[in-house]
Amino acid sequence: MTHPLCLWQPARVVLLTLAAVAYAPSFAADTHAHGAPHFDYRHQEQWEEIHGDMQSPIAIDSAIAIPDKDDDEDDTIVPHNGVHDAMVADTGHALQVNVAPGQWVKIRGRRFALLQFHFHAASEHSIDGRSYPLEGHFVYKAKDGRLAVIAVMFQKGAANGAAVQILKSFVRGKTDVPVKLDAGMLLPPTADYYHYLGSLTTPPLSQNVEWYILARPMTMSASQLAGFKALYDGNNRKQQPLSGRPLLHFRGN
Amino acid sequence: MTHPLCLWQPARVVLLTLAAVAYAPSFAADTHAHGAPHFDYRHQEQWEEIHGDMQSPIAIDSAIAIPDKDDDEDDTIVPHNGVHDAMVADTGHALQVNVAPGQWVKIRGRRFALLQFHFHAASEHSIDGRSYPLEGHFVYKAKDGRLAVIAVMFQKGAANGAAVQILKSFVRGKTDVPVKLDAGMLLPPTADYYHYLGSLTTPPLSQNVEWYILARPMTMSASQLAGFKALYDGNNRKQQPLSGRPLLHFRGN
Repeated sequence: MTHPLCLWQPARVVLLTLAAVAYAPSFAADTHAHGAPHFDYRHQEQWEEIHGDMQSPIAIDSAIAIPDKDDDEDDTIVPHNGVHDAMVADTGHALQVNVAPGQWVKIRGRRFALLQFHFHAASEHSIDGRSYPLEGHFVYKAKDGRLAVIAVMFQKGAANGAAVQILKSFVRGKTDVPVKLDAGMLLPPTADYYHYLGSLTTPPLSQNVEWYILARPMTMSASQLAGFKALYDGNNRKQQPLSGRPLLHFRGN
Repeated sequence: MTHPLCLWQPARVVLLTLAAVAYAPSFAADTHAHGAPHFDYRHQEQWEEIHGDMQSPIAIDSAIAIPDKDDDEDDTIVPHNGVHDAMVADTGHALQVNVAPGQWVKIRGRRFALLQFHFHAASEHSIDGRSYPLEGHFVYKAKDGRLAVIAVMFQKGAANGAAVQILKSFVRGKTDVPVKLDAGMLLPPTADYYHYLGSLTTPPLSQNVEWYILARPMTMSASQLAGFKALYDGNNRKQQPLSGRPLLHFRGN
């Protein structure tokens, strides 16, 4: 392989820099001769925010995913769970479990607090063209406001103990049915995952979200999967274009 | 202090969850009785992205900054610099130095590659009401596409060796004047910094940016500061509202 430095030329660097600051295709349309966008510091009220196209969910294609290199980063996802207080809620769009403070995960070196988890039937993401009957989204927030979602696929198999408790505690239209459970019972091993930058999959579709899709599915019994589907069926957003975003594949030892 | 768990009640958790997913004030206006926004999976084309208000620069007020706790995260910023090839560019809005691949920084456990750095006169951020004659922005990109900017304030004092080289290499209208320099000569110690989530400060104002403002300023000589100001004066965006974003203050040992 050619050393990256040997490939470096002025034109390449300018392109790299522009690609870095926006995924928006319109960025290139209104430019100076130098490649910089046109704007005037005396008329800042005319400046427009361009948000690009970084939406979720996506179709995960392992063939185009970038395998993670050993680059001395801490790439682990380490959940710190245990039995905690929670409230099962009917949000009107999903079964959601709002969890009491105190559960968190360490994702690639940074602590994120678990806010809630909820379920989509069928799955929103797909992995190599395969869809699953159910996808759980564990929504976390870091101290700087950064959101991260860990996505877990569920397929038919052994029953899940936490799913029993959650389904029993769901009451249509109620948002505060107390339950004690260990959210960790819903998480598979975390060493093999896909990662990309995306958005919430329901309005307001905010784009400040780090996605971590665990490659290994969990199981629920056929009747548990049917139980979730009976509550909300078809609450999965259609898949969005990757639009040039890096999709990374981490595989731990 | 009351244990956080003792404060936990259903209503609080719902509010926390909503606050987590959007800073947009309009989010609360269009809701179901349960607090969830109204949307319909059969009409996804009507869903609207709401981007909130996470712009840069901001006025940094140390009195409202949240002091970082010792929570076993790696909070260090470790630049890996050295003498590298670069190109001094006139972007039409700033003096910018596009750097060859191979320079990077490790920020809170994650590697970011240095793309370029550029200068604003006067400073864009302020710290406790104090503005500086010049602010340098070091723009980095992680492997997942995440952007980070390290901001450095410059005040009048001892001359800076890298600034000499950069100013000498600037040619009006040219974007590819080669220079060899060590960008690390422009960075102060990194142990004391402010951090928040923001945006680029020029169009397209993209909001996928982690900001790290180093508290300790660097110096340039009066003539160096005047040299930058003579090239671009007033290329500083007006300050934007914090709008409820956490502003964190990290102080290393």
